[in-house]
Amino acid sequence: MAGRLTPSFIARCAVLSMALEVSGTPKPGNIDREHDYVGTKYEDFLASAIGVYPVMEKACREGVGESAPRGIGSLILEASGESVRWQGGGNTHFGAYILLFPLIKSAMRGPLDELRDNAIQVVKETTIQDAVDFYRAFSMVDVRMKESKDLNSNERSLDVSDSSALDELGRRGTTMYDIMEISAKNDMVAREWVEGFRLSFRAAEKIQGKRRTGTMNDATVLTFLELLAEEPDTLVAKKYDMNKAIYVQGLANDVLERRMTLKELSNRLYVEKINPGSTADIIIAGLFISLLNGMRV
Amino acid sequence: MAGRLTPSFIARCAVLSMALEVSGTPKPGNIDREHDYVGTKYEDFLASAIGVYPVMEKACREGVGESAPRGIGSLILEASGESVRWQGGGNTHFGAYILLFPLIKSAMRGPLDELRDNAIQVVKETTIQDAVDFYRAFSMVDVRMKESKDLNSNERSLDVSDSSALDELGRRGTTMYDIMEISAKNDMVAREWVEGFRLSFRAAEKIQGKRRTGTMNDATVLTFLELLAEEPDTLVAKKYDMNKAIYVQGLANDVLERRMTLKELSNRLYVEKINPGSTADIIIAGLFISLLNGMRV
Repeated sequence: MAGRLTPSFIARCAVLSMALEVSGTPKPGNIDREHDYVGTKYEDFLASAIGVYPVMEKACREGVGESAPRGIGSLILEASGESVRWQGGGNTHFGAYILLFPLIKSAMRGPLDELRDNAIQVVKETTIQDAVDFYRAFSMVDVRMKESKDLNSNERSLDVSDSSALDELGRRGTTMYDIMEISAKNDMVAREWVEGFRLSFRAAEKIQGKRRTGTMNDATVLTFLELLAEEPDTLVAKKYDMNKAIYVQGLANDVLERRMTLKELSNRLYVEKINPGSTADIIIAGLFISLLNGMRV
Repeated sequence: MAGRLTPSFIARCAVLSMALEVSGTPKPGNIDREHDYVGTKYEDFLASAIGVYPVMEKACREGVGESAPRGIGSLILEASGESVRWQGGGNTHFGAYILLFPLIKSAMRGPLDELRDNAIQVVKETTIQDAVDFYRAFSMVDVRMKESKDLNSNERSLDVSDSSALDELGRRGTTMYDIMEISAKNDMVAREWVEGFRLSFRAAEKIQGKRRTGTMNDATVLTFLELLAEEPDTLVAKKYDMNKAIYVQGLANDVLERRMTLKELSNRLYVEKINPGSTADIIIAGLFISLLNGMRV
């Protein structure tokens, strides 16, 4: 992995990170290779991951004209549209895009040991246009979500969710970074932008450490479990309330301290229809960083 | 899917067909999302499928200079090398490449209703250079296979397997098509070249038919089972003998005629370490053709 990372390598790492995350099993409450939901299947996540490859590659552009860099907002908008061209399970990776695109741009910008610093810089450079495009993507996903009767996919909502506010964004000069800052309190994915991708890099460190002595699946699943035990999942908090998220956090700690088996936790969350989808988004970012750093499956 | 298929669409269909095939479970005897082997894991197949995306896209080239069309032999050689850069499970998709690359070139050449005719033409146009490159790829995979103690991955051998024969190919004017013709008797993948991709298109028809009324997984698994019941798997015949392949064929018929459950068949083949890997290669081709035709997961 000497020399500069190529767009094709970076894009494949992004696709593979989504495929590996959804394959990790049992990942309590979430869709994985052994668990489908009624309206969304494991295969939908695979198809979505592979279907967005060209958008991941576009995120690497840094030339001029047709090769000019693309904004993070417009990349999320395009990926959201492309994803549902390949599968009928609805929103599968919206949260993941919010983390992957800044990390992809950062990987193009400089060496891997500056990945985090560059990502922090990249998100601060987002514009009003990024905010507008992000809103459009969010509205699209949000509408589709409300049309669907199935509330089990990785849907998420932001504090700012009225799409009529588009013009208002321009008037106020709100950038995508500003939106993430506003959302950070109630959304751990948005919080990554504000806190310098703290959990994503923490996940990457855990994944690579565990992979050195265990299987890829164990590395993914155990890291998921540890993150769940460390921080309440904000998708759970939004769909239910913070108490529910803290309840899940407690259960994850029960597994880590051997008062409950992973399988029991898994079964309980599926029965109670609780899916910690934001933690899964963080795992994707962690896997992506690990793959960039040369981890093999 | 109106208009011409783009290289990016075709390449994604190829990658997704490999990901869907290995995900189909239970696919008796083969690695799938619920079955690993000691030296090769499910994730190795996912990483290999995603890792070769750029080679799938290169197969679509039809310009001049750097964009000049690539030979099927050199594409197989490049894909075989790229695959193992992404995973440590060895040869995962060698047989699939032999089917996918002609089908990809055919998809670029004309409309979908001419896919089969064009594929028949494409393989007849292979050259001595394709034969040489194919040999190199095969030797690479073969050597790696022999170095590995694990004989459970989808390795395959050809009748012509002495790599010192490289010069001989040139002297005799042997093309890759000729090699496939020689191998057709004992290799159902090679036979596809000679018989106009008969099983691949049969698999595609079955998959699309079953997908109309069932899940993606059912379509994959049931088609695999039906093909297994129709023709003895030649990888099984090579690793053991034709009697063993016919025995497996009989068991597949037992399942179709309800004398045995799919699960029982699956367990038996895993215990007896019999993997019908050539039939799996045909399924990949069938899935690829189905995806080109607009099938969604």
